[in-house]
Amino acid sequence: MTSAVVYTDRHCSGIKNKNLNGISRTLEDIVGESRVIGPEQIAARATSYWNSTPMQATALVMPSSTEEVAAILKACNEVGQSVITHGGLTNCVAAVESVSSDVVLSLEKMNRVIEIDPVGATVTVEAGAILQNVQDAVALKGLRFPLDLGARGSCTIGGNIATNAGGINVLRYGMMRTLVLGLEAVMADGTVVASMNRMLKNNAGYDTKQLFIGTEGTLGVVTKAVLRLFPQPASRQNALVSMQDFDAVVAFLGFVQKQLAGSLSAFELMWGDYYQAVTDAGGHRAPLARDYPFYVVFQAEGSDADADDARFEAVLTEALQRELISDAVIPKSEAETRDIWNIREEFDAVLKPAPVYLYDVSLPIRDMESYVAQVKHRVSKSWTNGECYTLGHIADGNLHFFVAPNEAGDNHQRSDECVYEPLGQSGGSVSAEHGIGTEKLTWLPSSRSDAEIALMRTLKHSLDPANTLNPGRVLSE
Amino acid sequence: MTSAVVYTDRHCSGIKNKNLNGISRTLEDIVGESRVIGPEQIAARATSYWNSTPMQATALVMPSSTEEVAAILKACNEVGQSVITHGGLTNCVAAVESVSSDVVLSLEKMNRVIEIDPVGATVTVEAGAILQNVQDAVALKGLRFPLDLGARGSCTIGGNIATNAGGINVLRYGMMRTLVLGLEAVMADGTVVASMNRMLKNNAGYDTKQLFIGTEGTLGVVTKAVLRLFPQPASRQNALVSMQDFDAVVAFLGFVQKQLAGSLSAFELMWGDYYQAVTDAGGHRAPLARDYPFYVVFQAEGSDADADDARFEAVLTEALQRELISDAVIPKSEAETRDIWNIREEFDAVLKPAPVYLYDVSLPIRDMESYVAQVKHRVSKSWTNGECYTLGHIADGNLHFFVAPNEAGDNHQRSDECVYEPLGQSGGSVSAEHGIGTEKLTWLPSSRSDAEIALMRTLKHSLDPANTLNPGRVLSE
Repeated sequence: MTSAVVYTDRHCSGIKNKNLNGISRTLEDIVGESRVIGPEQIAARATSYWNSTPMQATALVMPSSTEEVAAILKACNEVGQSVITHGGLTNCVAAVESVSSDVVLSLEKMNRVIEIDPVGATVTVEAGAILQNVQDAVALKGLRFPLDLGARGSCTIGGNIATNAGGINVLRYGMMRTLVLGLEAVMADGTVVASMNRMLKNNAGYDTKQLFIGTEGTLGVVTKAVLRLFPQPASRQNALVSMQDFDAVVAFLGFVQKQLAGSLSAFELMWGDYYQAVTDAGGHRAPLARDYPFYVVFQAEGSDADADDARFEAVLTEALQRELISDAVIPKSEAETRDIWNIREEFDAVLKPAPVYLYDVSLPIRDMESYVAQVKHRVSKSWTNGECYTLGHIADGNLHFFVAPNEAGDNHQRSDECVYEPLGQSGGSVSAEHGIGTEKLTWLPSSRSDAEIALMRTLKHSLDPANTLNPGRVLSE
Repeated sequence: MTSAVVYTDRHCSGIKNKNLNGISRTLEDIVGESRVIGPEQIAARATSYWNSTPMQATALVMPSSTEEVAAILKACNEVGQSVITHGGLTNCVAAVESVSSDVVLSLEKMNRVIEIDPVGATVTVEAGAILQNVQDAVALKGLRFPLDLGARGSCTIGGNIATNAGGINVLRYGMMRTLVLGLEAVMADGTVVASMNRMLKNNAGYDTKQLFIGTEGTLGVVTKAVLRLFPQPASRQNALVSMQDFDAVVAFLGFVQKQLAGSLSAFELMWGDYYQAVTDAGGHRAPLARDYPFYVVFQAEGSDADADDARFEAVLTEALQRELISDAVIPKSEAETRDIWNIREEFDAVLKPAPVYLYDVSLPIRDMESYVAQVKHRVSKSWTNGECYTLGHIADGNLHFFVAPNEAGDNHQRSDECVYEPLGQSGGSVSAEHGIGTEKLTWLPSSRSDAEIALMRTLKHSLDPANTLNPGRVLSE
């Protein structure tokens, strides 16, 4: 690995015309004037993908190398300066929302795909690389990076690692944690910990990289990673099917998990309310009748282009004969395939009228039906015109809700109670894949015991004693 | 989850006839007299699978519940008593070898399969459960726990977790880390941290269970786990093939990874020297000529029993036509299948004359050929009749060596140097799947940077400040 070339213009600029405070001048000394912006320019950015209010921070710094990140964190740590790390700003739990006293560390200039190893099936990237760019770069070599989610065009690998991202292919390829072979991170005091392992197996001591995966940037800033790749599949098959009840959904999942074992790559369940809302007038075309209680869009990825389509159709036919599913449609073109996936992935119709609250919970499949009924019951009791749209990666135990109170006022807390309160009975989690951020802080204890939270605090205090890295995320201060 | 019933006979015994010291009496108060044995009875046990000398310890305690483990660790921690945790004693890096001042904590009585959830595809077990018993128990429900290794009949789930075990199915199913959904562990001070998650996705705060996976019992004692299950495959195909050079091995691996994507479950490479040694007079029958430089035994697991055999044979035929492989044999019965796997798994022939040193390293595939040549060169330069047998899970980057000096004297250090010294150049690891234990302590710095080791020490000091849990394992004291 070669380090990125460090470009700074600190020697090219005669006049510093920005009205900068102490920490900003320190940052300029590290990265050069053009890579630090102050509050006015920062305010031209949106807070996040989900929040269009102006971004706030005392300074935003854009390092171009690990060494610069290390110097920045060291300098901030020495003066107790809070640092909020920014990737693609698509985080769903308000983890990237900075305040006026924060320094924002943006990895937008550290976005290179450094090396692809086709034999070892790995790619080495900087943390600011955008997921889709990595997917595209390895595809040119006939390889595949299988992490995939709706935000692919904006989210970064560093953010994917910090949040242990999930998405639609977890069923076959696992979450981000299982796809990270090696990583480099900078700790709060500026120490660089490079664990750029390239092998599937490495048990030489504690696997320290786990400390930086899924800890939301609170224990270190990920700067580089080695990711695991797979061959591009020889074929892909997709279908949209409908069922009459939840038992049929579970039976059909078991059936395809067995019949398409190893090739089943996605299985996305939509409750009828969601399907009806997104295929309503002005929305998506409905390829299947709109009055079923359940719909599933699913995908297989095969290695035998000649035989896979026939096998997939035979499995679907048998499922129809066994009455596991009520109806099915197999798309006949790339455009038709995109159409059925858009029903799952493009849900603007349920986001209006704002505010609509998005949830991401997990629980065992056997408890899902009664849990969803409880949530829907609570929503309908809370608001006369309240709606609760439900969908999810059920094979992963993961459900998403869009709760729309359709009523004026701040209903967020009440909405949270509708979703989270019935969850504890089944050992469910308030966050399947989005993390805790700042938004779910108060609900963490409903998914984690006092002993677990105490252990998290022990880690945070050991590794970031001055609490400068993403303070107030995951753990309340 | 219900806790195991705590059975103690502390109230049934009138006379304590063992000559016990202070800590032993404390242990008896916790678990009852029959669950604590002293040095004489301990000496009737072998030190480990690999070391038949008498086991040493001041006391060996056999708790039957998490609560008892907690009380034991708390009591030992308060007096600074070292505790060595025992599972199946098959550890390859001398991690279980206790000394006369240690307390041995044996999980042999905590061996229950607590619950199988066929819908969620999980099994909940106590840490002392033997791997093969878990495999068999879930097979009765049509499910599969895919971790598999030669020690399956002795090794325990707790040991598999503590060492992040690998084995022959990592290629498809991952190492133990990816198969553990939830676990319960007891920390050094007796705190029970229960994270018995059952879902594939759970990002509610730090994934604290990672602290107890692959840390060799130095940060806590695993007492229970929730493991991920898969459907039993509908079909299995196996073959033994031979190649003329390493490039052909790599090309064939790439070919089957693409052609059998999702169903390829094992790919085990044997160098000719190993194959020749184990198929010599009195050893295994050789299904293929004995003079090829490379042999691979590999396996696919399919979901379409009618079509999978034909597909597998077609892939093999194409590989022969493309001259990726020189010869191939497909076993025609369960017995023949066992025969070709025994060539890989039963290697008594290379273990004589003792001592023979076993190695487990990982490195990128692209560096393997030259690395193996260097090791063999060093071995042949070190000892006139020295032998170096090589095999490995190469798709995982993992090689094993058996180094036989065939010369009197203690050659261990020199053997280590032959294997480990050329490894650093390629960013390889001195431990792919066996861990560090006590045996590889001095070699850890050749695979890990000072910053990584310092971070490991920070964790150890934070979580086990009195250094009572498996002291001297992973990190030197």
